[in-house]
Amino acid sequence: MLYLIGLGLGDAKDITVKGLEIVRRCRRVYLEAYTSILTVGKEVLEEFYGRKLILADREEVEQEADNILKDADISDVAFLVVGDPFGATTHSDLILRATKLGISYRVIHNASIMNAVGCCGLQLYKFGETISIVFWTDTWRPESFFDKVKKNRQNGMHTLCLLDIKIKEQSLENLINGIEFYIYRGRKIYEPPRYMSINQAAQQLLEIVQNQRMRGEEPAVTEKTLCVGLARVGAEDQKIATGTLQQMSTVDLGGPLHSLIITGDNMHPLEMEMLSLFSIPDNSSESC
Amino acid sequence: MLYLIGLGLGDAKDITVKGLEIVRRCRRVYLEAYTSILTVGKEVLEEFYGRKLILADREEVEQEADNILKDADISDVAFLVVGDPFGATTHSDLILRATKLGISYRVIHNASIMNAVGCCGLQLYKFGETISIVFWTDTWRPESFFDKVKKNRQNGMHTLCLLDIKIKEQSLENLINGIEFYIYRGRKIYEPPRYMSINQAAQQLLEIVQNQRMRGEEPAVTEKTLCVGLARVGAEDQKIATGTLQQMSTVDLGGPLHSLIITGDNMHPLEMEMLSLFSIPDNSSESC
Repeated sequence: MLYLIGLGLGDAKDITVKGLEIVRRCRRVYLEAYTSILTVGKEVLEEFYGRKLILADREEVEQEADNILKDADISDVAFLVVGDPFGATTHSDLILRATKLGISYRVIHNASIMNAVGCCGLQLYKFGETISIVFWTDTWRPESFFDKVKKNRQNGMHTLCLLDIKIKEQSLENLINGIEFYIYRGRKIYEPPRYMSINQAAQQLLEIVQNQRMRGEEPAVTEKTLCVGLARVGAEDQKIATGTLQQMSTVDLGGPLHSLIITGDNMHPLEMEMLSLFSIPDNSSESC
Repeated sequence: MLYLIGLGLGDAKDITVKGLEIVRRCRRVYLEAYTSILTVGKEVLEEFYGRKLILADREEVEQEADNILKDADISDVAFLVVGDPFGATTHSDLILRATKLGISYRVIHNASIMNAVGCCGLQLYKFGETISIVFWTDTWRPESFFDKVKKNRQNGMHTLCLLDIKIKEQSLENLINGIEFYIYRGRKIYEPPRYMSINQAAQQLLEIVQNQRMRGEEPAVTEKTLCVGLARVGAEDQKIATGTLQQMSTVDLGGPLHSLIITGDNMHPLEMEMLSLFSIPDNSSESC
């Protein structure tokens, strides 16, 4: 049996009791390590679970899925995912491959950013399409996601923006060096991990707003649009801040992971009242 | 401290390790018992948690929140919610009241139907506004939610339909008898709980489609629209079925709780492949 087990969002103890029991009895336990992070590292999880974890990065899951699934028809294998196995990233590929090999699977769900964002008080059923904001480079500055925000706002919906994560990325420079290095030493060189902050996301959004104005378009979002910044949702030191998009470009919410919500209009009074608990600058450090 | 603790969707062991530790040390533990259910009852939870649970129905939470919050500034009180505390139903009221009383609160997140529906293979970020389908009566047959489905489909989005739950409802007849009973015996009479099935939801939707055609409108959904029925998501005996809306009106997925997804067009090939695992009639009992 292949078990896909959600770890939740905070630390080692956010796994469910059911999930923990399964982890402790599986023959092999993989930790998916490229789409999200907990506030604790692999070693802390290993100590709490009492099991060695095998790190599975994107390459391994995509290219060596058969290794992960090896003998899963006759023994139990666990694949651990921060959040929920079907949260921001689905693991459909692994499930489809397991099914083709005649391997049964089971999902142990947990909180993901997709539902835990409700803690800011905005009603989950009023969220439209979720978007991803990626790190811009000098030559690649995509704005296309902005149309989705526009559509959501036209329909009175909130937009959850998932912010970019770069783990085990090879820069062009390091790619070249890495290839040389690979030839001589047998391994690759990677960039240190990067996590987009709310400030960076807001700055990119503000630039798009400016670009749209320069093109004579009326942007669906302005400097004054009400936004919610969330950091380390589900962790003890979680922070939430409500303010304008302009304020989001400077608010300090500490370390990763960050998420940003662009609110829709026509909010329910209860949503407004909840958001006011987290207003900048009065109360930006309130946790929920 | 007031703790709002999500219980997840299946049984007693779907609580997180962190949640369980908090439940076991709180002075009073309330179980919110009107927006969702687990596959096990209060007694099973009490035995597993090793704590007595105080059932909190809608009336109590709305009218007697101060009792729930009593002494929560100097001791720990837990409020348990099936799914996530900010899932389908938010508990903003209780949090706002606590905050006004100077009581701190903390949320222990868990899976809710709002993110666990991802297990059918549809990508969560492509869901539009979530709707609720209520039990029709002879005199009250609302169709207004259908506009939201239409808007979602026009934007290529999936629609999660939460199906009605009636717990501790007083019928008009029982309301009269209940009042008399209340006078004589000091308690009220309630209807047995009712949970809308996928069949009932699909039948109501099909009737709306017919009504729209009779009015000369072109319905955004037809008998042939691809839907996903989900029953007891997160439980061992979870069932998923993919088929047309017409098929949803007769498919048998067993006991509650049920949810229905009306798919949007332009599905990703991976979504289609995942959905095919659950096709009616080939494989309607496949679990994930």
